[in-house]
Amino acid sequence: MSSPRALTITAIEGIGEIGVGDELAVVIAAAATHQGTPLQTADCLVVTQKIVSKAEGRMVALDPDDIEAKHRLIESESVRIVRRRGDLIISETRHGFVCANAGIDVSNVATGTAALLPVEPDRSAKHLRDALRARFGIEVAVLISDTFGRPWRTGLTDVAIGVSGLAAVVDLRDTTDATGRLLRATEVAVADEVAAAAELVMGKAKGIPAAIVRGLDAAWFRESSIRELIRPAAEDLFR
Amino acid sequence: MSSPRALTITAIEGIGEIGVGDELAVVIAAAATHQGTPLQTADCLVVTQKIVSKAEGRMVALDPDDIEAKHRLIESESVRIVRRRGDLIISETRHGFVCANAGIDVSNVATGTAALLPVEPDRSAKHLRDALRARFGIEVAVLISDTFGRPWRTGLTDVAIGVSGLAAVVDLRDTTDATGRLLRATEVAVADEVAAAAELVMGKAKGIPAAIVRGLDAAWFRESSIRELIRPAAEDLFR
Repeated sequence: MSSPRALTITAIEGIGEIGVGDELAVVIAAAATHQGTPLQTADCLVVTQKIVSKAEGRMVALDPDDIEAKHRLIESESVRIVRRRGDLIISETRHGFVCANAGIDVSNVATGTAALLPVEPDRSAKHLRDALRARFGIEVAVLISDTFGRPWRTGLTDVAIGVSGLAAVVDLRDTTDATGRLLRATEVAVADEVAAAAELVMGKAKGIPAAIVRGLDAAWFRESSIRELIRPAAEDLFR
Repeated sequence: MSSPRALTITAIEGIGEIGVGDELAVVIAAAATHQGTPLQTADCLVVTQKIVSKAEGRMVALDPDDIEAKHRLIESESVRIVRRRGDLIISETRHGFVCANAGIDVSNVATGTAALLPVEPDRSAKHLRDALRARFGIEVAVLISDTFGRPWRTGLTDVAIGVSGLAAVVDLRDTTDATGRLLRATEVAVADEVAAAAELVMGKAKGIPAAIVRGLDAAWFRESSIRELIRPAAEDLFR
């Protein structure tokens, strides 16, 4: 009997406050090793958008009481406003993400500041992956997560906004199901599911900005881009 | 140094084909024990909608080539059509779920049949949870998952459609973030994240219909309902 298929997801604690120019690969690898769970080849490292934005200097000044300034900032980070109701703006960012407030975040940052999304999250993920390889000789996938709402269902879930070395979407369309029937349209958004899984150990209020996901299907480790996850506007029924 | 916060997610293999009237608690517990990973108190057991529908006799005849019959079936399972394009129907089920084809599924079922959603998935989850307690003396949470698409992003993810003993949504609104700032609106859709995490080991093409999630926050184990996850139509910008 082979051992059953299993995943482990481990929070990386003790990372501390991140500043502009910090090398995340060094800080995160040290914290993982310190807690007795060093990063290993074939892991997927999930990091939150916020520490990436902080390391990359994507913090801007924003008076939390200046609603107009906030709206101008959201508009400057958006290519299209999708919906608007009261203080809530759902917009499409220049990356193609549809989310509230263009992904601009004022939680877990210094008062009077806001964190913008990384300019190119795939590149941020690749930088972290390359640095882990170069410094520590390990080959991991890296996923950058953020917290989005969604239509129809309450609550927020973490999704992927940048990826390197892991499939964003796995296409099962050419395979058969357990009864031998051809599966016609089963594209699984693996990167979003990994981000959601990692959130379960990170937790919004605990300030844990990274997690190790170990045991993902080896076939999913490949070059990819978060663009795989963005539905073309022409195919979208809700824009 | 305390051990880091970690989750393990284990596929339950060897469950085999489920028929009407099968007691899932018995079949699943036996399979988990057989593979050396018995269910334990404080686990969350995730099962797919399909085996619940099969056990509850929610299979109906459907000629896969009869598009009109399929559409009639979708309409009979829906309270509202949300969008329609070609063969694709996005509708609201009587449970309040907005999804493609009213959740009716023709994969991994006998040709010429389709699986409808359970009539009341919370009740199905509670039945399984109660049976595991009564037969084996273990107190687990049970979550029923299904595979939904979403606007704006490609690919499918698993979400929760029924729950017993686990919070569907965890409200962090009265807590502070790591900088001491009051978090105003951070409701995390924990049940959906658990469903997504479990899908990573189940896999559409492998026919594995259950997984054990171990290590969830003890505070999340409580009575709840999938209704916590359904956004009221009046608050929804996309219906």
